[in-house]
Amino acid sequence: MKIGVFDSGVGGLTVLRALQEQVPGADYLYLGDTARLPYGAKSRETVARYAVSSARFLVEEGAEFLTIACNTASALALDAIREAVTAPVLGVVETGANAADASSRTRDVLVMATAATVESHAYAAACAQRGMRAIEKACPLLVPLVEEGWIEHAVTAEVLRIYLTELIEQERGAGLDADTLVLGCTHYPLLRAQIEAAAPKRLRVIDSAEVTAEQVRKKLGTGDGKGSRGAARFFATDSVKKFRALGSRFLGREIDGVELVDLEPGAGSSR
Amino acid sequence: MKIGVFDSGVGGLTVLRALQEQVPGADYLYLGDTARLPYGAKSRETVARYAVSSARFLVEEGAEFLTIACNTASALALDAIREAVTAPVLGVVETGANAADASSRTRDVLVMATAATVESHAYAAACAQRGMRAIEKACPLLVPLVEEGWIEHAVTAEVLRIYLTELIEQERGAGLDADTLVLGCTHYPLLRAQIEAAAPKRLRVIDSAEVTAEQVRKKLGTGDGKGSRGAARFFATDSVKKFRALGSRFLGREIDGVELVDLEPGAGSSR
Repeated sequence: MKIGVFDSGVGGLTVLRALQEQVPGADYLYLGDTARLPYGAKSRETVARYAVSSARFLVEEGAEFLTIACNTASALALDAIREAVTAPVLGVVETGANAADASSRTRDVLVMATAATVESHAYAAACAQRGMRAIEKACPLLVPLVEEGWIEHAVTAEVLRIYLTELIEQERGAGLDADTLVLGCTHYPLLRAQIEAAAPKRLRVIDSAEVTAEQVRKKLGTGDGKGSRGAARFFATDSVKKFRALGSRFLGREIDGVELVDLEPGAGSSR
Repeated sequence: MKIGVFDSGVGGLTVLRALQEQVPGADYLYLGDTARLPYGAKSRETVARYAVSSARFLVEEGAEFLTIACNTASALALDAIREAVTAPVLGVVETGANAADASSRTRDVLVMATAATVESHAYAAACAQRGMRAIEKACPLLVPLVEEGWIEHAVTAEVLRIYLTELIEQERGAGLDADTLVLGCTHYPLLRAQIEAAAPKRLRVIDSAEVTAEQVRKKLGTGDGKGSRGAARFFATDSVKKFRALGSRFLGREIDGVELVDLEPGAGSSR
């Protein structure tokens, strides 16, 4: 089984890392569309166009199952991807909502995500479909803080405190009583310990990378093969050097052999 | 005279704003390549390809003079742009270095910029050409802090304190004695008061938007026309709504009538 994992950048490597641990029998193709990242600030049409070309590339390279590890693409382009390819497609928004559904007793959920994911209200919609209410909070400083490497840092702790305080004020204002907090961005698993420390104890934190891997494993029925790890090939649409340098933090180990691909051959790339 | 102003996003509106004040006799075309922003994380080849297509668009729309308000494009693609168009081209890196040259007595300069601008060492090279030494410091959190609207905010003050402390440590380590601090990113003029408050008094802060407008005025010899303001047309390659919403903060007034343009017609946009 070949599993394609797609993200706009390196954040989705947290999902690949969880997949390689939980579904070690599969081979992996990871594509980071780094030349066109971040998707977060772009319109639905642009995100769909980019995500579809990326999904097609992975299928052409042999992927039989696609994991959309990009929250923005999952939120804005999942239908477009499913129309464009025949392989089964699973997105991190639905896996996060599924995990919240299994976890929540109060049926009220809080979500931290990027501005674009929040504006799409994809988590609120996915939660509503499962009979839950959700409050979504845009946390645009967390991705740059993670990429700066300020994980165990006083500034990050203060930013998290501010964001969580605002989120809980929104929750109170809307009359919700949440017991679950979904990390709706692939960068956030790196801040999981800090978020768990800063959040009220009543909230169970759902790490979308981990729960996505769990759900892929259940869907594919792959054995656990403890201790081994599925092989992976890496593709990026821009600097393979930067992909390697930043990506190793998300994958948790060194990355070698990143292949440069051009998804806009008509645009006259000179690379 | 029609002046084209180009940036990857809305930050260059700080340059347009200064230009409209200092060169009010001109008409302006502003292009924000928001579908492909930020340029900062991309390779030289990709930035050059994007910047050249953007510059060509402005010239086709009638621009007779181009101001490259994007530090990354000025750092990585100025030669490529000059080869591609016949209109005169001025970039913010050279205008910043020119202003430092006029200001510095010690001939030592500090530069705050994005990671990509620092990695290019464009400011160090431009300063060296003018007989100055420069220490460049990547400040990747400042753009998201400005875009979050956290201008007068304790977190921003603390981030600035950390960045300036690290920058001055670098300066000491290299044996420099700077008297000038160049703000090498179009977002930073919005933090100018905070940076001036946090920086040692010996440093004169150079705001690249302001000095770029001064140098365009000198080059074009346009009269001052106090109180009036050159008319402007706005173009964006992605959501005009987002451009308006975020852009007004940088321009200092409401923006209406943003036109959507497609610089990748071969890529099959569905917008």
